[in-house]
Amino acid sequence: MLTFFYTPNTCSLASHIALEEAGAAYEARRVDFSSGEQRSPAYLAVNPKGRVPALATPRGVLTETPAILAFVAQSFPASKLAPLDDPFAFAELQAFNSYLCSTVHVAHAHGRRGSRWVDDADAIAAMQKKVPETMAACFELIENGMLRGPWVMGETYSVADPYLFTIAGWLEGDGVDIARFPHVRDHRKRMTERPAVARAMAAVAAPA
Amino acid sequence: MLTFFYTPNTCSLASHIALEEAGAAYEARRVDFSSGEQRSPAYLAVNPKGRVPALATPRGVLTETPAILAFVAQSFPASKLAPLDDPFAFAELQAFNSYLCSTVHVAHAHGRRGSRWVDDADAIAAMQKKVPETMAACFELIENGMLRGPWVMGETYSVADPYLFTIAGWLEGDGVDIARFPHVRDHRKRMTERPAVARAMAAVAAPA
Repeated sequence: MLTFFYTPNTCSLASHIALEEAGAAYEARRVDFSSGEQRSPAYLAVNPKGRVPALATPRGVLTETPAILAFVAQSFPASKLAPLDDPFAFAELQAFNSYLCSTVHVAHAHGRRGSRWVDDADAIAAMQKKVPETMAACFELIENGMLRGPWVMGETYSVADPYLFTIAGWLEGDGVDIARFPHVRDHRKRMTERPAVARAMAAVAAPA
Repeated sequence: MLTFFYTPNTCSLASHIALEEAGAAYEARRVDFSSGEQRSPAYLAVNPKGRVPALATPRGVLTETPAILAFVAQSFPASKLAPLDDPFAFAELQAFNSYLCSTVHVAHAHGRRGSRWVDDADAIAAMQKKVPETMAACFELIENGMLRGPWVMGETYSVADPYLFTIAGWLEGDGVDIARFPHVRDHRKRMTERPAVARAMAAVAAPA
């Protein structure tokens, strides 16, 4: 049995969708950021980094979205969520996910969690100001080549798709008009038509 | 044949060491950041992100350190650089690499490349000021649990080791005394005794 720790409006949605796509048996537990639960001793015992997502397995806890996504794909091979028998194609998928994690998510975080990197209020405001520019620059690359269409990796759906869906969902709040990126916009629409996406989003939106 | 694009004093060292550990046949090509070569049309044709590392393969170019590290491990299974037959252990390795990529490298980058996230000189200075604190916080977690010893994943050397070695090498320049983290310091020493590490470092240090 798996236990999945998530918080609404965070990158945990990507792994949540992947678990649904895989047909995994798991219990979902909400971590309440508004009360600082991610910093509670109970949650730090699960994930000492104080972040979501975390996936508790019988062998231990996994963290970090790219690692969880690849783990779900490998643990449920029948769901064909990654090209597991092709190291090059798998690496392309991982490169996409790593870019989302280390560059795009980080660009976004400068608008919401600037205190990770500066103490000064003026500097935090300066960070927030640049977010629309940095997010748009990231999505220029995604729109023009990285997103192959109809799915991220081309004809075959993979765990890169829920991750792109999750982060593209932040564009509006980051002051970027998704209409500038028609391939990304169409990908979002395609994703919302998948039952697994609807199930994960409904679970996240339900009252705590 | 593989072509590996690298730059001295960057995270490309991790993949460079991994290629040496794997006994891969590859040509190494230096990308000269001092002349802005990473933004040249020729290099952007290799990697539109304008970053290193990049690994050109007969099937296309791979980017992003965690993806390249896993690819090298999967492409050269005899070198046993990752637990390829154990999805949980592989995910633990990937979680470690993802943390280095998306959190620790990002903390470091605020000292050197703050203009990625702000335009204002005072804000860049504010970012630089906090780097010793954020890097030390990351290495507290690494020292106290994440680095199992003697290697990152325990008894078995893996591609996580050159990645930790690379980023731990930045601590001194980031104003953090590595003596605060004896396990990390001992790991660095252990790494420098490996012939593959010496070969990669000599290649990087050679005149262009």
